Amino acid sequence: MNMSLLVVGSMAFDAIETPFGSTDKIIGGAASYICLSSSVLHPDINLVAVVGGDFPTDFVDTLRQRGVRTEGLQVLQDRKSFFWKGRYHMDMNTRDTLATELNVLGDFDPIIPDSYQDSRYVMLGNLSPKVQSTVIERLKNKPELVVMDTMNFWMETAMDDLRHTLTLADVLTINDEEARQLSGEYSLVKAARKIRAMGPKTLVIKKGEHGALLFHEDEIFFCPALPLEDVFDPTGAGDTFAGGFIGYLAAQGRKDFDAFRQAIVHGSALASFCVEKFGTERIAEISAEDLQQRIRLFQQLSSF
Amino acid sequence: MNMSLLVVGSMAFDAIETPFGSTDKIIGGAASYICLSSSVLHPDINLVAVVGGDFPTDFVDTLRQRGVRTEGLQVLQDRKSFFWKGRYHMDMNTRDTLATELNVLGDFDPIIPDSYQDSRYVMLGNLSPKVQSTVIERLKNKPELVVMDTMNFWMETAMDDLRHTLTLADVLTINDEEARQLSGEYSLVKAARKIRAMGPKTLVIKKGEHGALLFHEDEIFFCPALPLEDVFDPTGAGDTFAGGFIGYLAAQGRKDFDAFRQAIVHGSALASFCVEKFGTERIAEISAEDLQQRIRLFQQLSSF
Repeated sequence: MNMSLLVVGSMAFDAIETPFGSTDKIIGGAASYICLSSSVLHPDINLVAVVGGDFPTDFVDTLRQRGVRTEGLQVLQDRKSFFWKGRYHMDMNTRDTLATELNVLGDFDPIIPDSYQDSRYVMLGNLSPKVQSTVIERLKNKPELVVMDTMNFWMETAMDDLRHTLTLADVLTINDEEARQLSGEYSLVKAARKIRAMGPKTLVIKKGEHGALLFHEDEIFFCPALPLEDVFDPTGAGDTFAGGFIGYLAAQGRKDFDAFRQAIVHGSALASFCVEKFGTERIAEISAEDLQQRIRLFQQLSSF
Repeated sequence: MNMSLLVVGSMAFDAIETPFGSTDKIIGGAASYICLSSSVLHPDINLVAVVGGDFPTDFVDTLRQRGVRTEGLQVLQDRKSFFWKGRYHMDMNTRDTLATELNVLGDFDPIIPDSYQDSRYVMLGNLSPKVQSTVIERLKNKPELVVMDTMNFWMETAMDDLRHTLTLADVLTINDEEARQLSGEYSLVKAARKIRAMGPKTLVIKKGEHGALLFHEDEIFFCPALPLEDVFDPTGAGDTFAGGFIGYLAAQGRKDFDAFRQAIVHGSALASFCVEKFGTERIAEISAEDLQQRIRLFQQLSSF
């Protein structure tokens, strides 16, 4: 069976300020990080996204060389790509948005080429829940597994759409603050119960430097984050995590508890690379062997 | 060799407010929690503490029944016990102190009875660093292992004393905020390096609901906290953790990396009980079998 992975998400420019420095416009966006990350494990990816004429063709070429098909990437030559500017606080777990320019993302109508129709695994990167559900509804065959990411912005502006999209997802990845916001529960155990009743049977709560929790059937699994000397830039860490998570599952063609556990470890290990440099720089240079070495560090860190 | 464990720390009354309820004066204090916790694993404890005439003799009897010797417990009949009143925020990881009455703790001059002189393991519970160092200096034989706890208050009011006491300790247990304050470093990896240069070769950073990190020689170990439906009262969780940690080590008579890892898991498991009810109520009812069952939950939670 073809285990092609379909990825939809933003491709964008980011400008980032952290206590360690700042960047001008660099490549960002959920789909950029997801594709770089999942292609380490599973270089068989169908990308659905939209960019403006200002988006670097070099980066698209890089993705193609990593096994990412781009027939579903719309390039709107006379328009501009999505732009986000943000500033991280000292704790690196919270940030302020300084600017958001939707540009081509404002009226994104996703195209699913025929060649993508047999995608068995789907990663709905952070994006309007309406676009996320449209992608699922335009697939003629029901996929094996749909993983979706989202963020607080959509809870505040498109909750009805989000509720609908949640019913289409098998797995939701979300951070701890967002899990609390979505459920109205402070306890993550209670939050998980409420969120799983909204649709996704499996829930991953990302806690940044505090690791990630998996809720699946009656089981809970916790994966720590690797303690790092410095976190230079957390941008894209959640997307990189999601890319590693779905990349592992698609590569294995599995969706049992053990596979989910391993997927979380792979996602966490890839995310631990992502934050070591600004933007996509670090994740773009990681090999499968680098990843396996880091996974051994995770094993040493948490086994007793 | 006698592996008696010497414990020094406060014994006190606490009044606690949380989002889930509040208590009048109940039994509290670092040494109370440490003794209850370590006696689950190692009922061979020499207590050094001071209370007023208002402190319940029932509780002292309870400790004795759990293998705690109290020749080193001073009861000052015409004075009052230490009192602390605090309020937890919704996140249960931060709190405000509403009242502190030092009372007998203000001029505590610790007595080490001759019968305590062969204590091989020492737990310096949170207390003035001057009292902590006095205890060590009044032991005629150098102990096998000295574990100390402290808090931000002493960094702000008695930093010189604290620096001296740190040079006498083999292991420091401290929370993440305090580690950052003590070291001036945000990264916990960097903070650990600086703190270990101050004296304690081994460092445990407690992160509350986010688990605990162990730094020992060139190794790092992480133990998660158990995800709980509800945390009713975090008071004493850090002391309960410390009690389980040193109790395991004293019971085993070991101080290698593997023993420290297991000690952290035992401490974390005991702390996970402590927060389930107000004050010392829950930890006082835990058996060795309850503890082993919970440790199996920790294994399931973090193995992959």
